[in-house]
Amino acid sequence: MSQPLRVALAGLGTVGAGTVALLAAHGALLERRCGRRLLVTDVSARSRGRDRGVDLTGFTWHDDPVAMARRAEVDVIVELIGGADGVAKAVCEAGLAAGRHVVTANKALLAKHGTALARSAEAAGLTLAFEASVAGGIPIVKALREGLAANELSRVYGILNGTCNYILTTMRESGREFADVLAEAQRLGFAEADPAFDIDGIDAAHKLAVLASVAFGVEVDLDGVHIEGIGRVSAHDIRFADELGYRIKLLGIARRTAHGIEQRVHPCMVKLGTPIAHVDGVFNAVVAEGDFVGSTVFQGRGAGAKPTASAVVSDLIDIARGRRTPTFSVAAVDLAPMRRSPMARHVGAYYLRLMVIDRPGVFGAVAVALGEAGVSIESVLQRGRDPNEVVPVVMITHDTEEQAMLAALERIAALDAVVEPPTVIRIETL
Amino acid sequence: MSQPLRVALAGLGTVGAGTVALLAAHGALLERRCGRRLLVTDVSARSRGRDRGVDLTGFTWHDDPVAMARRAEVDVIVELIGGADGVAKAVCEAGLAAGRHVVTANKALLAKHGTALARSAEAAGLTLAFEASVAGGIPIVKALREGLAANELSRVYGILNGTCNYILTTMRESGREFADVLAEAQRLGFAEADPAFDIDGIDAAHKLAVLASVAFGVEVDLDGVHIEGIGRVSAHDIRFADELGYRIKLLGIARRTAHGIEQRVHPCMVKLGTPIAHVDGVFNAVVAEGDFVGSTVFQGRGAGAKPTASAVVSDLIDIARGRRTPTFSVAAVDLAPMRRSPMARHVGAYYLRLMVIDRPGVFGAVAVALGEAGVSIESVLQRGRDPNEVVPVVMITHDTEEQAMLAALERIAALDAVVEPPTVIRIETL
Repeated sequence: MSQPLRVALAGLGTVGAGTVALLAAHGALLERRCGRRLLVTDVSARSRGRDRGVDLTGFTWHDDPVAMARRAEVDVIVELIGGADGVAKAVCEAGLAAGRHVVTANKALLAKHGTALARSAEAAGLTLAFEASVAGGIPIVKALREGLAANELSRVYGILNGTCNYILTTMRESGREFADVLAEAQRLGFAEADPAFDIDGIDAAHKLAVLASVAFGVEVDLDGVHIEGIGRVSAHDIRFADELGYRIKLLGIARRTAHGIEQRVHPCMVKLGTPIAHVDGVFNAVVAEGDFVGSTVFQGRGAGAKPTASAVVSDLIDIARGRRTPTFSVAAVDLAPMRRSPMARHVGAYYLRLMVIDRPGVFGAVAVALGEAGVSIESVLQRGRDPNEVVPVVMITHDTEEQAMLAALERIAALDAVVEPPTVIRIETL
Repeated sequence: MSQPLRVALAGLGTVGAGTVALLAAHGALLERRCGRRLLVTDVSARSRGRDRGVDLTGFTWHDDPVAMARRAEVDVIVELIGGADGVAKAVCEAGLAAGRHVVTANKALLAKHGTALARSAEAAGLTLAFEASVAGGIPIVKALREGLAANELSRVYGILNGTCNYILTTMRESGREFADVLAEAQRLGFAEADPAFDIDGIDAAHKLAVLASVAFGVEVDLDGVHIEGIGRVSAHDIRFADELGYRIKLLGIARRTAHGIEQRVHPCMVKLGTPIAHVDGVFNAVVAEGDFVGSTVFQGRGAGAKPTASAVVSDLIDIARGRRTPTFSVAAVDLAPMRRSPMARHVGAYYLRLMVIDRPGVFGAVAVALGEAGVSIESVLQRGRDPNEVVPVVMITHDTEEQAMLAALERIAALDAVVEPPTVIRIETL
């Protein structure tokens, strides 16, 4: 039997405590699967006294996680502190500098510094692993990097934020408005007191940037992600989507286009019957499209102490067994710079909802505005009439370039009879 | 740059040709991902002249695949011949004996000889890899063996046979009977001329036996799989299932029970809204339930040259990179003997359809028979009345032990008014 794999844990929040609990519960099982023990020896967290529901006796306690990463006699540092910079980054850098493998669940850190950290790790012959950073317990990083590695991927997309999916699912099921459902989600603990990070799409963008790098072998490029949150999705839109045979989901999408790689996070209309349309509540799902494998769907819990711990420990098992993979699917020195496909060149169909005064000639003016911008309409939904009142008009366009759509919207917004800024939701063909 | 990984292919049917095509199409990509080339040097197949749509010039041709496995100067033998014994087995054994890694898509072989082959491979420090043997392009073996390896799994189940799923999907969509849809599937090439292997559940049982071994770290035990095919599912049952909020799917299920491990392949009723209920047509899906990760769903194309080639080559990539994993998740010498949980002790709810003569007292007699056997009824569905004619009566039971259900069926079948053998479909709670 080989030596144990010695592990230091930096951060003992829910995921850190979950990881300790998993390793305690499955010691014998993991030893059988790894051929050696996984042994936490050192820990560091802010509050030493707090009851975390797990036994921490026997671990060497460090007040300073960076010092721990530098000095603890371990093989792996597990970074579960969080944050794109500051202590988390210092811990990972110190760990790598000291010759320790690093496992992290920190998507913000990876989205900002992933390429640099990968290059440091690989230059030193070390592993930087991050299965837990995207889609919780779903082994999607491994799937993209190893399981589907024989494919050229054309598109990777998914429901990457459970809070947004919970809110959109509840809006649909209850017919209630966004603000109302968000407030409830906060009361129930499904949304943070400061929800911006989730509902504005930032969290999903971090995860998407990591996925895109793995999927396409390019440098991580968070700044290249087009980001829109779910705050402007109204109960109207949810209802119209239903009527038209769609669901509205916040998707993170990375795809190859003729212009480069498009990375975007925004509400999408997806056809009922597609697997992603039926992933509800706090679940996550990722779909990978490869030229040989076709479309492959991975679904599971996207967050929580236990699923995330499952992913953290799967990385430890790989390290314990000596299984090495390039951090982002090809050697970090070979990662191509991201060639951004501009959003203005995005091509797709659009859902358009206008609030207009119901009077003769309005629809004609809208149609002219669309036509002049080169946008053609596939279908129109207008229910009932209400002369001289404000009524919604919903249109689905044929495939069009985003810049044409923007030009059309400018013309439409300028019309007298259009009383609110138009709502536009991109339709994603799956 | 390291030496190329030299590969010999035994078998050039659709999957073999697909593998050649993939390696030709993605040579540069794979070299970046592996850090070395994947190089087919030797091939063997029955017909040398046949046009397979791929360029075979440059490969050394062998008429005898076993001799090739023994003598070709390669690192890996890829066995794509098929069959549980005979040449396929001889090729794998010869390859391992000669110190070559073996990659195979052959579930029949693994289901029968998997444990022995794994022991041979591991004793020689070689890899026996078989991602392509289960669920085509879905990287489920890797997911169970590595991605979810931090979990104790409680149940693994899935739609493992595309032919059966296509037939059941078409029966539901068209309302037609099994024999009719099967004949059409044969004409369209979705079912074999001799369909027994698929529709009787044998193919799914092979795959389930492999999955169960990986999931639970036990010896492969095909003989322990309870197998029923889809031949007795009628249009009646499909319609009643719909009405009751279920879909009928042929599932392969392996789960831990108090008595051991239950392995079974049979038609199941699954609740609408569960992910597996909505996997239609030729798609496959596998769900793994772990104590930390929860329920995780993997979905994709279960067959076909290209998806299967994707899986074969993913195994080659692992070998090229030197990534080693115990064949069935723990060292083959440590695989526990399968402790079979007997079907008589299976506990679950049942759908029961009787064809009875509609006359007073019949339902009472059925209810007495069920009651005497200790089976209690949750709901009954009887549509309309048709005195003295044969009408269907459908019942859903509460959870009951299979042996009680069998006793009840014996009593029911003996009733005069019951004119056909009762149809029973197990309900799987997902």
